[in-house]
Amino acid sequence: MAKKSVRDALRLDEVDLSTLDPAGRPIGPRNKREAAEDLALTGTELDGLQEALYAEGSRAVLLVLQGMDTSGKGGVVSHVVGLVNPQGVRIASFKKPTPAERRQHFLWRIRKALPEKGRIGAFDRSHYEDVLVPRVEKLLTAAEIRKRYREINDFEQELAAGGVTLVKCFLHISPEVQKERLLARLDDPRKNWKYNPADIDVRSKWSKYQEAYTAMLKACSDTPWYAVPADRKWYRNWAVSRLLLETLREMDPKFPPPGYDLEAEKARLISADPLR
Amino acid sequence: MAKKSVRDALRLDEVDLSTLDPAGRPIGPRNKREAAEDLALTGTELDGLQEALYAEGSRAVLLVLQGMDTSGKGGVVSHVVGLVNPQGVRIASFKKPTPAERRQHFLWRIRKALPEKGRIGAFDRSHYEDVLVPRVEKLLTAAEIRKRYREINDFEQELAAGGVTLVKCFLHISPEVQKERLLARLDDPRKNWKYNPADIDVRSKWSKYQEAYTAMLKACSDTPWYAVPADRKWYRNWAVSRLLLETLREMDPKFPPPGYDLEAEKARLISADPLR
Repeated sequence: MAKKSVRDALRLDEVDLSTLDPAGRPIGPRNKREAAEDLALTGTELDGLQEALYAEGSRAVLLVLQGMDTSGKGGVVSHVVGLVNPQGVRIASFKKPTPAERRQHFLWRIRKALPEKGRIGAFDRSHYEDVLVPRVEKLLTAAEIRKRYREINDFEQELAAGGVTLVKCFLHISPEVQKERLLARLDDPRKNWKYNPADIDVRSKWSKYQEAYTAMLKACSDTPWYAVPADRKWYRNWAVSRLLLETLREMDPKFPPPGYDLEAEKARLISADPLR
Repeated sequence: MAKKSVRDALRLDEVDLSTLDPAGRPIGPRNKREAAEDLALTGTELDGLQEALYAEGSRAVLLVLQGMDTSGKGGVVSHVVGLVNPQGVRIASFKKPTPAERRQHFLWRIRKALPEKGRIGAFDRSHYEDVLVPRVEKLLTAAEIRKRYREINDFEQELAAGGVTLVKCFLHISPEVQKERLLARLDDPRKNWKYNPADIDVRSKWSKYQEAYTAMLKACSDTPWYAVPADRKWYRNWAVSRLLLETLREMDPKFPPPGYDLEAEKARLISADPLR
């Protein structure tokens, strides 16, 4: 039997969040130790693929991370994106739009943060915030939000046509685990700064956000979404690292051939001794 | 006897490159294995200090990497800067200025790439290229270069006053080891892309570059330089990691106290269950 890919196992086809287990392990390692071993190997291979992508310089990857507070968007950046050479990475995190940003089209600040060719980009939150928050907070009409869904689909098609491969991850966490993690931020003086009282306001709208996610995941799946069970940090990190790895393996970036005469350069190097 | 710091051991006081051994180990581990163990521990501590620096959000560190081709500027970014969370890092590499950049003051593109508060910045080449190349290539008069030295000293004082701590590293390599590394780039198809025929033109001016470095290191030491022996990659990485570690330990960044009522937030979190 052919081994199923992580992308096949986690691709979101029918969007029904109530049937997705945030603590599930639909594929892959069964415990933290196995996951850590695999993550280290994946890191080495990812680093090599990233170097080839950089050397090739004609394509890019963009990891889009969405999920409720504490679902681990920052953790993925640190533990997964952190596996590769930081020179080949471009990270952007999107907070609540500033007044200046709100005067622009919602994709304006997104476009500015796209990875250069040869890079792996990572978005900690993204353009998807601009269809989630307005729906929950009723800042836009239903028609305006549908227009944004269409614009996002077009934008992502445009990226693909321009050589940017998207890996869209919905980090799926349970409200119980979110509570644990928010409490941990309050209990640990080294984590107090990560806590924001507004987080509880968002948390209190949990089911509204799940509805907004469901509508968005359905409307914006021209480029597929992956649902990553995120109640276990080790599983979440493993899964995202594998989604990236499978994507880069398929892209199969190649080190370019030399644009010069190898033998002539060797001869020059050996003959031209600066100390003589 | 008090243990000497790596900063004290490598600080460049009297600039005479001919007396500095690029294969030296003036302090620290005696072999690769010891260095690797220490680098791993240093990485863990650096990552924690970087998180506090980020949380504090009022200061920054800027690692300036200078050295001849193959001295390992990129290797330091990958193996040392790569030890900390990539979200807290800002990397910039400076190639030959473009025509658009040349129309600006030479510090213009440097200022644009400075790390935000809370970040560790890393410059792979820097404003120092703008006093090295013009001196070797006679693109500026001696008076113009002296003016740039003064501007650099002023600029670095301004950075310090603004909360940016500089760690300036001169990666010191021998011409023999450079030859080995250039040959390796020609011999390994995965490294061919890193080789540029112009590298040999620069190499052929080795002694002129050593003179230009000497003059620059003497003139621009208001903020100290560290001379890092770079013939051994493991020693170079170890040394830079330690320079960063000692700098961050001295800065002693603190996690900020919560800007909210801890107990009230805990009560809110426990009572406001979104599932009830």
